[in-house]
Amino acid sequence: MPDALYERLAIIGAGLIGSSVARAAGKAGVAGHIVLADADASILADAERLGLADSYHSDPAAAADKADLVILAVPVGAMASVAGDIAGALKPGVTVSDVGSVKESVLDSLTQTLPPHVHILPGHPVAGTEQSGPAAGFASLFEDRWCILTPPPQSDTQALDRLTRFWRALGSRVEIMDARHHDLVLAITSHVPHLIAYNIVGTASDLEAVTRSEVIKYSAGGFRDFTRIAASDPTMWRDVFLNNRDAVLEMLGRFSEDLTALQRAIRWGDGDALFTLFNRTRDIRRGIVDAGQDAAVADFGRPHKD
Amino acid sequence: MPDALYERLAIIGAGLIGSSVARAAGKAGVAGHIVLADADASILADAERLGLADSYHSDPAAAADKADLVILAVPVGAMASVAGDIAGALKPGVTVSDVGSVKESVLDSLTQTLPPHVHILPGHPVAGTEQSGPAAGFASLFEDRWCILTPPPQSDTQALDRLTRFWRALGSRVEIMDARHHDLVLAITSHVPHLIAYNIVGTASDLEAVTRSEVIKYSAGGFRDFTRIAASDPTMWRDVFLNNRDAVLEMLGRFSEDLTALQRAIRWGDGDALFTLFNRTRDIRRGIVDAGQDAAVADFGRPHKD
Repeated sequence: MPDALYERLAIIGAGLIGSSVARAAGKAGVAGHIVLADADASILADAERLGLADSYHSDPAAAADKADLVILAVPVGAMASVAGDIAGALKPGVTVSDVGSVKESVLDSLTQTLPPHVHILPGHPVAGTEQSGPAAGFASLFEDRWCILTPPPQSDTQALDRLTRFWRALGSRVEIMDARHHDLVLAITSHVPHLIAYNIVGTASDLEAVTRSEVIKYSAGGFRDFTRIAASDPTMWRDVFLNNRDAVLEMLGRFSEDLTALQRAIRWGDGDALFTLFNRTRDIRRGIVDAGQDAAVADFGRPHKD
Repeated sequence: MPDALYERLAIIGAGLIGSSVARAAGKAGVAGHIVLADADASILADAERLGLADSYHSDPAAAADKADLVILAVPVGAMASVAGDIAGALKPGVTVSDVGSVKESVLDSLTQTLPPHVHILPGHPVAGTEQSGPAAGFASLFEDRWCILTPPPQSDTQALDRLTRFWRALGSRVEIMDARHHDLVLAITSHVPHLIAYNIVGTASDLEAVTRSEVIKYSAGGFRDFTRIAASDPTMWRDVFLNNRDAVLEMLGRFSEDLTALQRAIRWGDGDALFTLFNRTRDIRRGIVDAGQDAAVADFGRPHKD
């Protein structure tokens, strides 16, 4: 085993992301001992059955006790409460990080709740699937994906360097960013896309003139792509929108403004305006594929019989 | 070779769909002779190099001459003009169909342009990828996908039955539908999804506070899903919106109304409203997977190293 970056790693929350961190950290050998905690007894039992960690706790404070790195992998809205639970158990010099999709509110919660002898270094691995729970996780989830760390000013550089090496060992590329800027960037690359996916699935479900069965049968025309992210964890996403309100509303305002312009182009038969937009959006797809952030193969590589 | 359903099949347009019909029909042995036509010399040369048909023509009238089934696989906006080109060459009793994503305008165009001795039976295989051109096609594209036929009233039942068997031989499930209802159903399952995908990619490209490089790097948070269909053929999609205006505007109006309600829920911190929607949208995904219209595997089956 390579030298462990952290003697004792505690992961609070054994869902898709927490369980994947446990798997990837175990595989990379970056922690001497991995503790996994979950307040839900059946999720914890699943994680234990899968053998994801070295020890298991239902109590987050017991899990965080003596840990060198604690990663909070719970919905953003639960961060403050879990931080309160573990605050008294944290040893001096421990790093507390997280995997939440919103960073400014998490940084505020942790700063207000945790004692001053803790290195607070929030993080966000931009990776996931639409599935939930410990069985859905896998060790390569973070490979070639970006992990964004949003350390507050005057963070300890040694602690930050160690956390950076931790995520690199899990296969991630690491970026350091201001928490507020993170929230703006993710509003457009993740939060608003999820919102409009949830929204169109809701709209399609509520129609009278088109049946639910028709929506399902003809979904290969494009709609099915949206249903994937609209199947993501409802609690996690509710918390994202409640905790990144301003950035989401800002980006949503721009989206709606642009959509109104497209609507007008359709109403007035302005084919040139439609063609111009549809033509320039191809470049971004090419950029994403070239940057290794999506598969080059057609249709996401969906299984075909050829 | 099994008995051919049509002695001579002419496919006008050798793009993704036309070339896939040629491949699938060849593989299924449902045509005695397959003619492929394309007005673009380099596309036709590609098709010929790939050996997709038995003969090749740049002139659609020459291709349609003596054909028993003609399938128009050109953008919806080009249907009337191609129909005009072939009208004089069509033999009595020929079936003329198409693969366009809008059906009422195509039915009108064909009815106005083609002679009365032709069976006009418009069709729409609900299948495709974001790629274009003859090299992107493949024989199994239509397998387990729905092909919707929209025959006008008083269509010849024998001709309709033969076309139905043709698409079944290509692996499709076949549904008969009124053209106007088709256009309403596809507006929500295909056209509006494409429009909002194009729109969000446009919005993301135009931001000042978030760079293009950031949009690309962090696209795995959800945005990248939308870039796939926003990379679809611009001409094809311009024509869809120009030719299905009323149904698209109707569905878009509902989408925007629902999105405004979600925006309000975010602004006022109404977590219950968000959770309720996010929870009920999971069912539709399950329905689509159960109906065999998408892969059950996480993340569309995108390649992972595990």
